[in-house]
Amino acid sequence: MSGVRASVLAASNRGPVSFRVGDDGSLEARRGGGGLVSGLSAAGGGPDRRWVCAALSDADRHAAREAPDGRLDLAGLDVGDQPVRMLDIDPGTFSRAYNGIANSTLWFVHHLMYDGSTQPVFDAHFRRQWASYLDYNRAFAEALAEEAADGATAVVQDYHLSLAPAMLRALRPDLRIGHFSHTPWAPPDYYRMLPDDVAAAVLEGILGADRAGFLTDRWARAFADCCRAVLGADVSEDGGSLAVTHRGRTTELGVHGLGTDAEFLRERAYRPDVDARRAALLERIGPGRKVIVRVDRTELSKNIVRGLLAYRELLRRHAEWRGRVVHVAFAYPSRHDLPEYREYTAAVQRVAREIEDEFGTADWSPLILHVEDDFPRSLAAYRIADVALVNPIRDGMNLVAKEIPVASENGCALVLSREAGAFAELGGEAVPVNPFDVDMTAEALREALEMPDDERAERSKRLAAAAVALPPQKWFLDQLEALRHE
Amino acid sequence: MSGVRASVLAASNRGPVSFRVGDDGSLEARRGGGGLVSGLSAAGGGPDRRWVCAALSDADRHAAREAPDGRLDLAGLDVGDQPVRMLDIDPGTFSRAYNGIANSTLWFVHHLMYDGSTQPVFDAHFRRQWASYLDYNRAFAEALAEEAADGATAVVQDYHLSLAPAMLRALRPDLRIGHFSHTPWAPPDYYRMLPDDVAAAVLEGILGADRAGFLTDRWARAFADCCRAVLGADVSEDGGSLAVTHRGRTTELGVHGLGTDAEFLRERAYRPDVDARRAALLERIGPGRKVIVRVDRTELSKNIVRGLLAYRELLRRHAEWRGRVVHVAFAYPSRHDLPEYREYTAAVQRVAREIEDEFGTADWSPLILHVEDDFPRSLAAYRIADVALVNPIRDGMNLVAKEIPVASENGCALVLSREAGAFAELGGEAVPVNPFDVDMTAEALREALEMPDDERAERSKRLAAAAVALPPQKWFLDQLEALRHE
Repeated sequence: MSGVRASVLAASNRGPVSFRVGDDGSLEARRGGGGLVSGLSAAGGGPDRRWVCAALSDADRHAAREAPDGRLDLAGLDVGDQPVRMLDIDPGTFSRAYNGIANSTLWFVHHLMYDGSTQPVFDAHFRRQWASYLDYNRAFAEALAEEAADGATAVVQDYHLSLAPAMLRALRPDLRIGHFSHTPWAPPDYYRMLPDDVAAAVLEGILGADRAGFLTDRWARAFADCCRAVLGADVSEDGGSLAVTHRGRTTELGVHGLGTDAEFLRERAYRPDVDARRAALLERIGPGRKVIVRVDRTELSKNIVRGLLAYRELLRRHAEWRGRVVHVAFAYPSRHDLPEYREYTAAVQRVAREIEDEFGTADWSPLILHVEDDFPRSLAAYRIADVALVNPIRDGMNLVAKEIPVASENGCALVLSREAGAFAELGGEAVPVNPFDVDMTAEALREALEMPDDERAERSKRLAAAAVALPPQKWFLDQLEALRHE
Repeated sequence: MSGVRASVLAASNRGPVSFRVGDDGSLEARRGGGGLVSGLSAAGGGPDRRWVCAALSDADRHAAREAPDGRLDLAGLDVGDQPVRMLDIDPGTFSRAYNGIANSTLWFVHHLMYDGSTQPVFDAHFRRQWASYLDYNRAFAEALAEEAADGATAVVQDYHLSLAPAMLRALRPDLRIGHFSHTPWAPPDYYRMLPDDVAAAVLEGILGADRAGFLTDRWARAFADCCRAVLGADVSEDGGSLAVTHRGRTTELGVHGLGTDAEFLRERAYRPDVDARRAALLERIGPGRKVIVRVDRTELSKNIVRGLLAYRELLRRHAEWRGRVVHVAFAYPSRHDLPEYREYTAAVQRVAREIEDEFGTADWSPLILHVEDDFPRSLAAYRIADVALVNPIRDGMNLVAKEIPVASENGCALVLSREAGAFAELGGEAVPVNPFDVDMTAEALREALEMPDDERAERSKRLAAAAVALPPQKWFLDQLEALRHE
């Protein structure tokens, strides 16, 4: 162990920095964004902060191995103001834990995405993945235990690390431990698909924390329901605040609806690279046409295919909109290690071609689809959106629903799935949809397109205000304070 | 309207009789079995009873059209002691209601069988199906309204007819109306996938009854949860008995765990046709080998593939059982109008071949798989079962779990999914499995195979006793009495 022990620690699969090998063979650091990066910065930088994360690529592993005790800052690498310990986890172990358990099992359970008749299958192959998930979580718990000063506060992030809180508590009972779930939570009847020991271990892992955070009251209640149904735990409620008591220990459940960082977004969205892409997009769209925008990872839960089907239904049913609207759909690649995701991208492209074939004319393309990531182009689309389409089948929060109203130039109408966590905060000003109901989504798009300008501007203002109510910095500090003062 | 009006009426998609065209071109009647047939018989036969059902085939439609007012008995056709009115529903309407809504939508929702990312899609095509489901239910409600005497009692069966109770009440407020669900019921987070108006209509349709029956407390509670979450209905509980109040009307929820008819089963299972098949099966199995039996419709929820995977895992892991056990798996065809079901049958056959290839020897076939229906052969398998495997992913009740212990000659150990409704009654004497957990199922099979003979015999006796606690006759009369005296 080198360096100062930390009094505030964060742990997450993805860290604030990643590496690639440059043309000259040297490692180049690339610093990332996101709520947690902003949040932890707000907690103050300096040597007694610590971020523990996993090496995600060969270049990351190389950087981690070169650094003393995996401490990137001690190796003189640029990690900003947040000392980072990057864990060099065996690639096979990492893949089984990350792809096998986190993304193919827990993610599917919480988003209700199994077809039941054929998936999931919990067999010997699954057991090897589960053993790796234990190893992966243990590596984090051990690193946190090493890095933490006496009585320090450690916040552990998300479904990749559901076992780490209990493991860390066993190693370091003096710490204040938090866990935060960025996903939805499954109802007990679905959650109990998991093998009995796995279902219990995930709940008991999180209950190892003093405080377990969720994005909405709905997911916190689902977690509590699972604790009651699977563990027989006791759930109490005090003024709307839930607590779970299991084996004599009580874990408080907190709700912190992560918002968007308006300052960053507005500044970033008006830089020249975005301006250029905005001009190019408007050129392709053509004058006087309304713009429906969606921006998503190509994630099975984001419901891009049904979104396209709804747009097609709109054009079929309401011929007056043909030639007068363009749907800008950005679906950038995600989790392409999993075959379901590659198939889904193909399905998105197939339906897009069908729409172009059915409605496209010499001077009107009904759809602009891009499946490569381009952040400035996404921001350009945000700015020109008349309608934002955010229709996930189930979503922890969905920050795009918050970002578009904040970045839009003339105000946008938001068509929002009631299964998104964001619906709890934005539902009142949005046009709500049942994400499985393509007919309803088509009508919601029409309603959003036909919303009077002044109403749209007013609603968009209120959406933007709600979207920034809990920016990442405050979101993180609130959790930290609650954790320390409980 | 001809004939006497009825004081007790049953309505179900499938009636107690079906037809086929014989070699000479005339209609041949074939009377069916099942719980409802036995049940309604127990309520007494005669002219003031009535069964309303749908014509399921061209021959059925022909019979219905020939009969005065669709009354088969009045046409002199052999319907036993239960006057039957068979509805000649337009084949397109029938298919959209039966395949489209009942079996592809409601069944999938209640069994949690959608993959979410791609299915279901509620679009214009679905709306046509839904309109047909309304027509189909209305045809039943109108027929019941015509046939019912003043103040009569009508019991409406299952998810095909979830709208009929409310429709019937509107036509005939003087009737006592019951509804019975033979399926599981989905939790609210899953049920709300349905389009909003459909989700509400199905619940309000059933709430049109004075009494709604379910096979277990678990499904009744899930129904009540959906009424609360979707309709904002009020749910009350009095001594374990639930009631739902919506728009000023109260519907009592009843739990009636349909059992098996021991008398019929034991008599039928020892006839010569069964004896012959028993001998043939034993010949194929070979002497001294234990027998694991499963008998199912090839229904996505029955989990036949994971059952085979578990058997393969048993043979891989416990080599001592190779050559000493045979798995008799009967999976007879079901719902082959739906492509998912044809694919599932193919998957069953594929895994079966893999097992044969991996383990089969010159003098031992590890598996006997049949995919054609043969009732006497199923009974023969029941008789010789050492272990019964009943592992549905979700099941309203599962009568096979009750039938095998009753019919088995030497007592059988029951490996039973805790997601089957039957688990509520049989779980204490069964070897329980999480049906998604192939590893656990393999170990449960081993445990069942190795259960000492006396323990197995004792448990089997208790299973058989529990299985016949509520035979079909009493099951039906209990409902009728509760409905009349509420």
